[in-house]
Amino acid sequence: MSSTFDVIIIGGGPGGYFAAQEAAKAGLKTAVFEEVHIGGTCLNEGCVPTKTLLNSVKIYKHAKEGANIGIKATGLEYDHKAAVARKEAVIKMLVSGVDRSVKKAGAEIIRKRAVIKEKAAEGFVIEADGEAYTGKNLIIATGSVTSVPPIEGLKEALASGFAVTSRELLDLQEVPKHLCIIGAGVIGLEFASYFSAAGAKVTMIEMLDHIGVNFESELSSLMQKKLEKAGCEFFLSSAVKSLTADSVCYEKDGQMCEVKPDLVMLCIGRRPNSANIGYENIRITAERGAIRTDCHMQTNVPGVYAVGDVNGKIALAHTAYREAAVAVNHILGIKDTMRYEAVPAVIYSDPELASVGYTLENAKAAGFDAKAVRVDANFSGRFLAENEAGEGFLKLIVDKKSERVLGMHVCSTYASEFIAQGALAIEAGLTIRDLKEIVYPHPTVCELIREAAFSYK
Amino acid sequence: MSSTFDVIIIGGGPGGYFAAQEAAKAGLKTAVFEEVHIGGTCLNEGCVPTKTLLNSVKIYKHAKEGANIGIKATGLEYDHKAAVARKEAVIKMLVSGVDRSVKKAGAEIIRKRAVIKEKAAEGFVIEADGEAYTGKNLIIATGSVTSVPPIEGLKEALASGFAVTSRELLDLQEVPKHLCIIGAGVIGLEFASYFSAAGAKVTMIEMLDHIGVNFESELSSLMQKKLEKAGCEFFLSSAVKSLTADSVCYEKDGQMCEVKPDLVMLCIGRRPNSANIGYENIRITAERGAIRTDCHMQTNVPGVYAVGDVNGKIALAHTAYREAAVAVNHILGIKDTMRYEAVPAVIYSDPELASVGYTLENAKAAGFDAKAVRVDANFSGRFLAENEAGEGFLKLIVDKKSERVLGMHVCSTYASEFIAQGALAIEAGLTIRDLKEIVYPHPTVCELIREAAFSYK
Repeated sequence: MSSTFDVIIIGGGPGGYFAAQEAAKAGLKTAVFEEVHIGGTCLNEGCVPTKTLLNSVKIYKHAKEGANIGIKATGLEYDHKAAVARKEAVIKMLVSGVDRSVKKAGAEIIRKRAVIKEKAAEGFVIEADGEAYTGKNLIIATGSVTSVPPIEGLKEALASGFAVTSRELLDLQEVPKHLCIIGAGVIGLEFASYFSAAGAKVTMIEMLDHIGVNFESELSSLMQKKLEKAGCEFFLSSAVKSLTADSVCYEKDGQMCEVKPDLVMLCIGRRPNSANIGYENIRITAERGAIRTDCHMQTNVPGVYAVGDVNGKIALAHTAYREAAVAVNHILGIKDTMRYEAVPAVIYSDPELASVGYTLENAKAAGFDAKAVRVDANFSGRFLAENEAGEGFLKLIVDKKSERVLGMHVCSTYASEFIAQGALAIEAGLTIRDLKEIVYPHPTVCELIREAAFSYK
Repeated sequence: MSSTFDVIIIGGGPGGYFAAQEAAKAGLKTAVFEEVHIGGTCLNEGCVPTKTLLNSVKIYKHAKEGANIGIKATGLEYDHKAAVARKEAVIKMLVSGVDRSVKKAGAEIIRKRAVIKEKAAEGFVIEADGEAYTGKNLIIATGSVTSVPPIEGLKEALASGFAVTSRELLDLQEVPKHLCIIGAGVIGLEFASYFSAAGAKVTMIEMLDHIGVNFESELSSLMQKKLEKAGCEFFLSSAVKSLTADSVCYEKDGQMCEVKPDLVMLCIGRRPNSANIGYENIRITAERGAIRTDCHMQTNVPGVYAVGDVNGKIALAHTAYREAAVAVNHILGIKDTMRYEAVPAVIYSDPELASVGYTLENAKAAGFDAKAVRVDANFSGRFLAENEAGEGFLKLIVDKKSERVLGMHVCSTYASEFIAQGALAIEAGLTIRDLKEIVYPHPTVCELIREAAFSYK
């Protein structure tokens, strides 16, 4: 016996649960299979938990450094364990909220591991716990897993607990004295921000000659400077060669060096979670594990879609949401295409870094006659008021010919909350002139957008 | 002898200094007359000082209530005097920054009181300190002053210091035990937020049957509830009849009542500052002191403009900026018109209230077949993570026919920084469908816009 659905979704993270919700709301008979927990990596061991911790430490830091702004804090202490407990409570509330929303929309949540078996006349057959289910359409949303490179001693270190991934680190009850983070990408940098503010000595080892991978270069430099001020040390252009029971060995400039931390965090990236989901059984094309999709998020097999980290495009929860909407629209016959030009990226440090669209270098490489206009964050009265001796900036990347906005890059408080104005400007094709006509409330930090528009020459 | 300018601006507040900057940058010979201080009310005794204080008290409050999120705060004290000193330092930095920008743009700052004298062949003649200056164009940007109504005993109370306006209250070195605020408009509410958090008992007396004057009604109600929770008391539909040396007498439901606070703040609004500037000498039309302007900010006298509070439109610094740009564009022959449909308003309480565009009631009154879509702030993972048992919401007002956004109303953290996305949506004529295609970073509070768009039916 087989249950038949209009849409079967494999994986209940942001891409999966959002697709389930939207498909069900549109009247499609929908099931989402999730073997671990609804909300996926993002909600349970990614975006949301890290931001909860970062918020705690930010308030602690501001209060601690608050003498000048009117806060006398003689007996202030940071209680990492309480912050972790709070994080757990937040996850629980959010998971149950998502669960409720998906069910309310009318989708069925099936808490089983699903494997794609075959394409039959009625649709795609998947198997879970020995039972077969058929979906006229299939959305693969199985996310990603932490990459574990073949470094000597790494497996043993992970087994002994000397090395951990972000998952375990989030549940740590004590702040380590000395944390070594391998990989200075977005995730590594957020953990470095948190643990250095919470009192740990942090060492970061990075293969590239800069941190933040693809982040706009001035943002990366400023971030490094701020973290160094907070006590982090960086070894760039450095390749980790091996781990022992209590040390990390890396090569820099042809020399072998060693760090002896209390704990190592492995943070060199994530890879699509596509192994053992059976995509090969219906001849879906993948490239190094990433399931290939077109602008409708459809794979090479009509009726099968892949959204979120598993397609290897941009591994961010908000990309997954949008991709899910595009996939469901395609199933419903609603015209829509996925565009990646206006996907923001944020590092929730203090102050925050946020980017959307082209950097100047990328815009030029893409053939635009582009220029950057940059304003110092201290042009904002609010920034100046709330950040003593604070450093920050906002940069607009503009196409000289049309004066359209191609990108926006910001280091400032609240950047995460107003970077979408850059996304909106890019999506709506707004020009410098258009931005000048927007009324931004005063005093805000987002007024920097106006300031930049008026500084454009 | 007379100095001649292309543009003479009277008043160096946001409207005035911004006009000066833009006119000078465009190559016009520009002078701005300011008798007190560059930056005007906003920078010196309005927006910026209040937000500096509110930021201090917000951090204090979060730290104090932070046990649950990991902040052990024994010995925490709020030091109002230090916050006031910090505010002074911020003002100084900002004023000198504005001064520098205006001069760098090439405008002349003349620190004198200017009075309009006559229209001559070469332009408009103004007099300052016995000297005459001629401007081919004139921009009046003299702002507003606190309204002092004819209440018995008020003048005496202001003279004795028992009653004060926002100006004096901002410089108070001690938190009063019991502060009575007459008028529960935006300014009064921000002071109530601040002083109640800083430890004062606050009583508000308001003529209307609700607080926040024209703020969206659910926002006003929620604000009142939150302030009541913080210990504020409200007497609505209450008219202050008289002040004695130590009491405020008001009438409510036909009964006379009395409050005996330590200090009274007068906060019933502001009126255009047009007395004694000589506008009558060149026959400019004004209505109850508000200088009338058209959509180019031009008065009935060609070549004379009025921007900011003095024109009696929307007394907010950011309106003045935009009006200044429109006036300068008109002088330069650049096509531009002032629109008031997308001017945001913010109350910087914690969490913040922010509005832009139509409320549902206003949209219907304006003839739109409109509906509201409302989402709870707890749909945002970030809001939930950062606000324990927090209340808030986001509401979009939508034209049913076109599905265009007509308004946005928010109570949440960061609302001030993302309300401009509503302004942008209104200005660019975006529809619900357009909003669904924007990628908002996750996790943010501004994702509530997306949530609302997807909840629209």
